[in-house]
Amino acid sequence: MAIPAEIAAIGSRAEAMLAELGAISSEPQRLVRLYLSSEHRCAADLIAFWMREAGMTVTEDALGTVRGHWRPDRETRLLIGSHIDTVIDAGKYDGPLGVVAGILAVRELAARNADLPFGIDVLAFGDEEGSRFRTTLAGSSACAGVFDRASLAFPDRNGVTLADAIKAYGKSVDDIAAAAYDPAAVVGYVEVHIEQGPVLEAEGLPLGVVTGIVGQSRMRVIVLGEAGHAGTVPMRMRQDALAGAAELMLLIEQTAVENQDDGMVATVGRIEASPGATNVIPGRVGFSLEFRSSSDARRKAAIEQIKADAQRIGVKRRLEFAFEPFHETSTTACTPLLQNLMAEAIAALGLEATRLPSGAGHDAQVMASLCPMAMLFVRCRGGVSHNPAELASETDMGLSVAALVRFIEILAARDAGQRGRT
Amino acid sequence: MAIPAEIAAIGSRAEAMLAELGAISSEPQRLVRLYLSSEHRCAADLIAFWMREAGMTVTEDALGTVRGHWRPDRETRLLIGSHIDTVIDAGKYDGPLGVVAGILAVRELAARNADLPFGIDVLAFGDEEGSRFRTTLAGSSACAGVFDRASLAFPDRNGVTLADAIKAYGKSVDDIAAAAYDPAAVVGYVEVHIEQGPVLEAEGLPLGVVTGIVGQSRMRVIVLGEAGHAGTVPMRMRQDALAGAAELMLLIEQTAVENQDDGMVATVGRIEASPGATNVIPGRVGFSLEFRSSSDARRKAAIEQIKADAQRIGVKRRLEFAFEPFHETSTTACTPLLQNLMAEAIAALGLEATRLPSGAGHDAQVMASLCPMAMLFVRCRGGVSHNPAELASETDMGLSVAALVRFIEILAARDAGQRGRT
Repeated sequence: MAIPAEIAAIGSRAEAMLAELGAISSEPQRLVRLYLSSEHRCAADLIAFWMREAGMTVTEDALGTVRGHWRPDRETRLLIGSHIDTVIDAGKYDGPLGVVAGILAVRELAARNADLPFGIDVLAFGDEEGSRFRTTLAGSSACAGVFDRASLAFPDRNGVTLADAIKAYGKSVDDIAAAAYDPAAVVGYVEVHIEQGPVLEAEGLPLGVVTGIVGQSRMRVIVLGEAGHAGTVPMRMRQDALAGAAELMLLIEQTAVENQDDGMVATVGRIEASPGATNVIPGRVGFSLEFRSSSDARRKAAIEQIKADAQRIGVKRRLEFAFEPFHETSTTACTPLLQNLMAEAIAALGLEATRLPSGAGHDAQVMASLCPMAMLFVRCRGGVSHNPAELASETDMGLSVAALVRFIEILAARDAGQRGRT
Repeated sequence: MAIPAEIAAIGSRAEAMLAELGAISSEPQRLVRLYLSSEHRCAADLIAFWMREAGMTVTEDALGTVRGHWRPDRETRLLIGSHIDTVIDAGKYDGPLGVVAGILAVRELAARNADLPFGIDVLAFGDEEGSRFRTTLAGSSACAGVFDRASLAFPDRNGVTLADAIKAYGKSVDDIAAAAYDPAAVVGYVEVHIEQGPVLEAEGLPLGVVTGIVGQSRMRVIVLGEAGHAGTVPMRMRQDALAGAAELMLLIEQTAVENQDDGMVATVGRIEASPGATNVIPGRVGFSLEFRSSSDARRKAAIEQIKADAQRIGVKRRLEFAFEPFHETSTTACTPLLQNLMAEAIAALGLEATRLPSGAGHDAQVMASLCPMAMLFVRCRGGVSHNPAELASETDMGLSVAALVRFIEILAARDAGQRGRT
């Protein structure tokens, strides 16, 4: 497909903005931009400058979320957002692309002198990665009215609490409640984000409609057998915890593969065998187990299946398995109607609109508690993220802004039609 | 089977001697008796006392091996031995039982005023466990004439070399060569030892004839895949090094099980997955792999099989496997004729004479390079060894001494018969 010159120009502009933002770091050799740091302040000011340049007025709420307002006189508004904080040694696209795409979309609509039935707020959240405090998604939680005040007491690694940091940033914790949007005044929330996975690249597609943000279950699995001399205990008499763990790990993998249509993934990322000597049969194994999937019910069923498998292996091998859950989040579905409108917008660009779940968490999952929500994924090279090698092409970014503009136009036409009917 | 009073008495005597030896330790709370230490000196003196008490004259060679000589005037001699050094936090049977059994057998023969065509040397070696120096089996190597002088430079953890320690023990490295027996003057070597495994206990038998000391191959296996985000990389696109390792571990186990008739065992005792985070797909796994078996050829064939399996898994899963060998010893067979005589001796006690390989190393494997060699295994509780919970019952120990005496009588009768024929 030939890329129109205006889309290429928008992509080139996005890349220039992300390069400028990516240079704002607390370390000279790598990108580190923590929540409520002086680098956050600097990035927020640059974002505010771009917002004003695009024709928006700018405010900032108690948690440092920068809000660009376009046509604030409208009764309702569409929210477009993402985050500007980073992990340690980050790439420059994860987060900022969604903010830049929102600003460029507004700039495009303003240039077209678009007449929409709603205003637009572009939101630049400051805490999605959770790199500084134990909390995460603080900014979007405040906007959605679900901020947990208990997190104000969480300290960073220097002992500075979130409450202290908010004050030092020039804000007041007393104003957090006021940051919440009135659901009646919000049309929806939309977020553009790099995929952080390899699916779009493998399918040869620049854009994808996100079906939902998958829920996850994390647990620790303990396998107890009997340690023994590697030379003197015959195979038939062993209670080898690692061999039992290996058998279960293959069944875990198989269960996830059987549920691939649900976007299910299962990962064993850590493992330790004790006592851990070359010539001693492992008597104890501990490993981490993480399941993610689009359907909470299927994920729970998969875990029950694995527990039953473990029980069976335990009887056969004379081992004991224990499962210790330590983290559980439910799946957040993207609003079906908005998914369809986003697919329509992508198709209008002459592109195939594939759908895929998000395996990673996003501000959108919190915003979904406020209003209808959609996400647009942008292909990233090699599926690499949280790494300086992270890359989205100028063309793909240009297409994402074009799709976002089209999405807004379709939504506006639909909204106007509904108003006409009432 | 009713145990005759004299066998019970011998077992009781063995237990008392082992308790006395087991009290000689460098630490008050656990048993630690290192080669050429003051505790070694003390234990050697006690052994020498018992040897004299049993009617033997005593010498000590350049590596501290205590030698009790019974009927030294005979042209040839049968050697009976084991070791008196220990691991850290040892049990009191591993090693000393073989020395005590030799002394008690000689005492029994002397009491019967047995007329044998050969003399007997009971040998108490000082370095089988290798707990102090990197070398192991130093004493038996010197007796067999295969001592490696390069090991004289090995330091202990305080920087004292083996050569220094020999000198401090009042010996001279110049006398090591003279410690070697003349093969023409040796009828054979026999060693009584606890099994250190669970086979005899599982079969309900107090004694077993050892078929050989299994060879071993140790290696490190490296699996290389591709690390990735546990949430965003779908199952079908993963190159999960740990899942590949799990598949290979099950095939390793299966291969050893298929070769159980050869006494084959395979153990993965250590494993690490990198980067080792709950939410990251492992890109690299390293694990230890140890194969032991009675047949060197079958062990090598099994390893080749595993490498072929790894190759196949690597193609299927897009992983790379590397095998890095770091230790290799060949199998030492016990002399078939002596195995048969030992079985005959056990049967003469009214016991079933089962045969089993030794998965652990012993002085006997070095002595086999000097002369015909046999080993008699004694049941130990739970297969536990290298642990204070190590236990051989008085009855079983009494039976082992009785079997050893009978073995000597059968060997003597055979030897006398052969001499009569020439």
